[in-house]
Amino acid sequence: MKLGMVGLGKMGFNLVLNLLDYGHDVVVFDVNEERMELIGKEGAMIAKDYQDMVQKLDSPRIIWLMIPAGALVDQVIEQFVPHLSQGDILIDGGNSNYKDTLRRAKQLKEKGIHFVDVGTSGGMEGARKGACLMIGGDQEVFHRIEPIFKDISVENGYLYTGEVGSGHFLKMVHNGIEYGMMQAIAEGFEILEKSPFEYDYQEVSRVWNHGSVIRGWLMELMEHAFSKEPKLESIKGVMHSSGEGKWTVETALDLQTAAPVIALSLMMRYRSLEEDTFAGKVVAALRNEFGGHAVEKKE
Amino acid sequence: MKLGMVGLGKMGFNLVLNLLDYGHDVVVFDVNEERMELIGKEGAMIAKDYQDMVQKLDSPRIIWLMIPAGALVDQVIEQFVPHLSQGDILIDGGNSNYKDTLRRAKQLKEKGIHFVDVGTSGGMEGARKGACLMIGGDQEVFHRIEPIFKDISVENGYLYTGEVGSGHFLKMVHNGIEYGMMQAIAEGFEILEKSPFEYDYQEVSRVWNHGSVIRGWLMELMEHAFSKEPKLESIKGVMHSSGEGKWTVETALDLQTAAPVIALSLMMRYRSLEEDTFAGKVVAALRNEFGGHAVEKKE
Amino acid sequence: MKLGMVGLGKMGFNLVLNLLDYGHDVVVFDVNEERMELIGKEGAMIAKDYQDMVQKLDSPRIIWLMIPAGALVDQVIEQFVPHLSQGDILIDGGNSNYKDTLRRAKQLKEKGIHFVDVGTSGGMEGARKGACLMIGGDQEVFHRIEPIFKDISVENGYLYTGEVGSGHFLKMVHNGIEYGMMQAIAEGFEILEKSPFEYDYQEVSRVWNHGSVIRGWLMELMEHAFSKEPKLESIKGVMHSSGEGKWTVETALDLQTAAPVIALSLMMRYRSLEEDTFAGKVVAALRNEFGGHAVEKKE
Amino acid sequence: MKLGMVGLGKMGFNLVLNLLDYGHDVVVFDVNEERMELIGKEGAMIAKDYQDMVQKLDSPRIIWLMIPAGALVDQVIEQFVPHLSQGDILIDGGNSNYKDTLRRAKQLKEKGIHFVDVGTSGGMEGARKGACLMIGGDQEVFHRIEPIFKDISVENGYLYTGEVGSGHFLKMVHNGIEYGMMQAIAEGFEILEKSPFEYDYQEVSRVWNHGSVIRGWLMELMEHAFSKEPKLESIKGVMHSSGEGKWTVETALDLQTAAPVIALSLMMRYRSLEEDTFAGKVVAALRNEFGGHAVEKKE
Repeated sequence: MKLGMVGLGKMGFNLVLNLLDYGHDVVVFDVNEERMELIGKEGAMIAKDYQDMVQKLDSPRIIWLMIPAGALVDQVIEQFVPHLSQGDILIDGGNSNYKDTLRRAKQLKEKGIHFVDVGTSGGMEGARKGACLMIGGDQEVFHRIEPIFKDISVENGYLYTGEVGSGHFLKMVHNGIEYGMMQAIAEGFEILEKSPFEYDYQEVSRVWNHGSVIRGWLMELMEHAFSKEPKLESIKGVMHSSGEGKWTVETALDLQTAAPVIALSLMMRYRSLEEDTFAGKVVAALRNEFGGHAVEKKE
Repeated sequence: MKLGMVGLGKMGFNLVLNLLDYGHDVVVFDVNEERMELIGKEGAMIAKDYQDMVQKLDSPRIIWLMIPAGALVDQVIEQFVPHLSQGDILIDGGNSNYKDTLRRAKQLKEKGIHFVDVGTSGGMEGARKGACLMIGGDQEVFHRIEPIFKDISVENGYLYTGEVGSGHFLKMVHNGIEYGMMQAIAEGFEILEKSPFEYDYQEVSRVWNHGSVIRGWLMELMEHAFSKEPKLESIKGVMHSSGEGKWTVETALDLQTAAPVIALSLMMRYRSLEEDTFAGKVVAALRNEFGGHAVEKKE
Repeated sequence: MKLGMVGLGKMGFNLVLNLLDYGHDVVVFDVNEERMELIGKEGAMIAKDYQDMVQKLDSPRIIWLMIPAGALVDQVIEQFVPHLSQGDILIDGGNSNYKDTLRRAKQLKEKGIHFVDVGTSGGMEGARKGACLMIGGDQEVFHRIEPIFKDISVENGYLYTGEVGSGHFLKMVHNGIEYGMMQAIAEGFEILEKSPFEYDYQEVSRVWNHGSVIRGWLMELMEHAFSKEPKLESIKGVMHSSGEGKWTVETALDLQTAAPVIALSLMMRYRSLEEDTFAGKVVAALRNEFGGHAVEKKE
Repeated sequence: MKLGMVGLGKMGFNLVLNLLDYGHDVVVFDVNEERMELIGKEGAMIAKDYQDMVQKLDSPRIIWLMIPAGALVDQVIEQFVPHLSQGDILIDGGNSNYKDTLRRAKQLKEKGIHFVDVGTSGGMEGARKGACLMIGGDQEVFHRIEPIFKDISVENGYLYTGEVGSGHFLKMVHNGIEYGMMQAIAEGFEILEKSPFEYDYQEVSRVWNHGSVIRGWLMELMEHAFSKEPKLESIKGVMHSSGEGKWTVETALDLQTAAPVIALSLMMRYRSLEEDTFAGKVVAALRNEFGGHAVEKKE
């Protein structure tokens, strides 16, 4: 099929390569011209701007946005809309908050434009060689573009999840689970690191990944990470996050659901951003007040 | 090789079948005679009691205990010891607390008996077709019996983890991680269940298991569980536990390690054992006291 | 001073009595006419509607809203505004979300109306005999109406907290701390209840409230609650919540702050709303899948 | 009454002054001679060693141990026992683990010595001017020495809690609650510190301590701490702990009780002991592996 791809970051770039492998015609656009040139050499058509992309596509057009979640998505949609026609299909394959997706779908529907939300998992490797896709939107529209999803996903790796928003919602929850799993693994290795025993973590990851209950891709990645550095010596334990974990917790609260593991996974990430905490000062000061326990002083 | 197996429960029984597949000679004992007869038909030799098992084995003997952790292990060891000779090898393949293992190893060492601790993961299926084994003990002893581990584990699925106790310690931490992963998955599905969308959980598990970051054996099992019952309708959400999660948290505390995800996974299990809580009554009563908020009354 | 009070619920009613004690002239309005009659007998002037209230007050008017947080506050403000004049002062003494307060203050400022946010703590008893007030808004406006705050608060019990919104923000965090403290107390009593010892909880609360580190009003209330029922026998442990705890956690997430204790206090409340959980079913099903552990069945 | 006091640390020293105020005759011993001289000037009798203390007391003797929990208590008891007679009363007023108390009581009972466990709260100020005492042991023995408890506690501030061990158990749970309350307060102030508003924390503590739901001694101490340093600038947020919180969590686990707030309070203390964590490295490494997210590097 012929489609446009906006955004040639880590994920978008790999998705285009993946699409080209399957013989799709891809018109690309990114503000970074270097990335466009690179992908152009691989066979993608380069659009000068949104208008140009629209002109290079046939009606009803299929345009896939693979850009950072947030205000940028709104901006891009706003700039696209004047050039689009009734029946065109806009796909948001990024990690957008499902609430934004619901809002955008409503606005686009008024203009007769179909909005499809695709939660994309599997990292860069997945984008390149076979992703996991969770797809929300109108079912008839989904079926029309299903060949694309079938090609770029790993076998058995795409799912029509229902009405618009359900794809991004499912991806959000997937990432919430991912936060919890990663923190569980991390706590386990920290306990090993402080234990009286001396383990070879690459070997531990390797054996845990063969036959154990906790085997899976994350454990494979652990083995790979430890193969590069036995104790992750050069890495600082600062855990950044990019939104989905927070949204999962916020959604859990909205739904009055206890999700302590996902919440704590997120909060330990926040804690890791700081060297010292005001909360810690407060507790240390209180212990000093009532019990005369010494406080540690800043130098 | 020739070895004894004490305990023909879910795990022990399958391990014997696994050993027999590889041509090992296995002498078995269990208090349940029916289980012994069953396994006898598969080719195992039946021992009448511990003494008989010892006599049926050649020096230095190899005896594998696959029995419930706790006092029973001490009892069985105590009853075996008078019949054993210097250089015999006793393997504890159960989920024993590593502190007990250290104590037992010390006692057995005084009698010249080698103690090897094997953490066994992979469930019943693993025991039957290829387990994941974490093996602590004397390295020379390990190498002597390594062929056994190689045969009954999945490819790449066994590891010599170091001095005695390190196998059970590693298995304990493995299970702690498992608790965290399971609770993360569980929280995710609970959020889906309360969400405004309608998901087919078998399909969700299926797609998450193909190409996503959280793919792994637990997600395969989710798919299987949902294939039997789409909403797990018949199951009560009572989450039992069998020790390793608790020991992991206790060990984390001993090591002054923050392990919030593993701790909360365990505590949510405890919470699930109760319909109502005294803590809940206290908070409800307090809210009523200061704010006049109505309490719900027991019928 | 002369002021209007809208809302004669548990808090508003007691505040009016408190104001009347100090000789203030209070014009009241509530949709519940019975409450109005009741308070009328105590000396309050009754307004027929918002317009009537405005007419019964002198310019610049002071109107205190003591109504449930949320959409109702917006409705009442919208209905008031046409009758108000530049320089009038609107006070929101309820538990409004500070984000709503910021929005409302901005809208009212455009109309020349001062908006003052008052976080009110101390429960019904405090409203009646001396509350704790956290007051945000224009400092000059605060000073003009300070006599009101001074009278109805307990000695030393009011604070000008800075620009508008800061009062409700501080009250929100106060309630977040309250959630954490209450859950801590509740967990403590649950541990006692399951302990091998037999404690008299009224006596325990009494002694903890005399000389211990954890003495305070909540412990006084515990003693009172246990004096009515030694084991809170008739109360179900269902813990409702009314917003501030949730907002505190959401704010913590927005500020990338680890607040595990406040978050878990809230989540245990959510957990108490359910007899069984889908998360529990998932974990039980998984344990059955890999380990053959029996699940409990619904009858 | 006449009694011996072993241990003149922060708590013991103040308790002796407190006892002397009420006309009790106190024989003291501490390895620190300077402390003994100091208290001698206040009217206490100095013992050269345990034997001397025993000789200076009348049968049945009352000896109060106020020494750090752990092995030292066992050592001191062991050294005392040869000099004691049937019917003597040994009081452990320190923060001993109740399990140790049960063990010691059993051993001492075999020798006819009464063991009384006293959980002591209220900090140094309480020890000096009126503590909160939770007292376990034989009820008849308790009544015999009750005048001592009555004098040195604040009014209404002592409780006979039942059989031996129940005093230390109750004190342990008290401290668990204390951990939770302190962490709740600390999280609240951290949220304020990161908020868009500018609060004067001394003033906030002051107003929260007058009429609010969370008023109590800890909030008084907060006000005092902030009066010395508005932002606790000089203090490092390192939160040490001394055992009771850990024991409370361990006990909760033994009793299969969910105590997430107390557990997390403890774990955040452990987290504060470290600048960087291995868990953090693991999560950062994983994010890099699957998503190409940059890790922060150690310098």
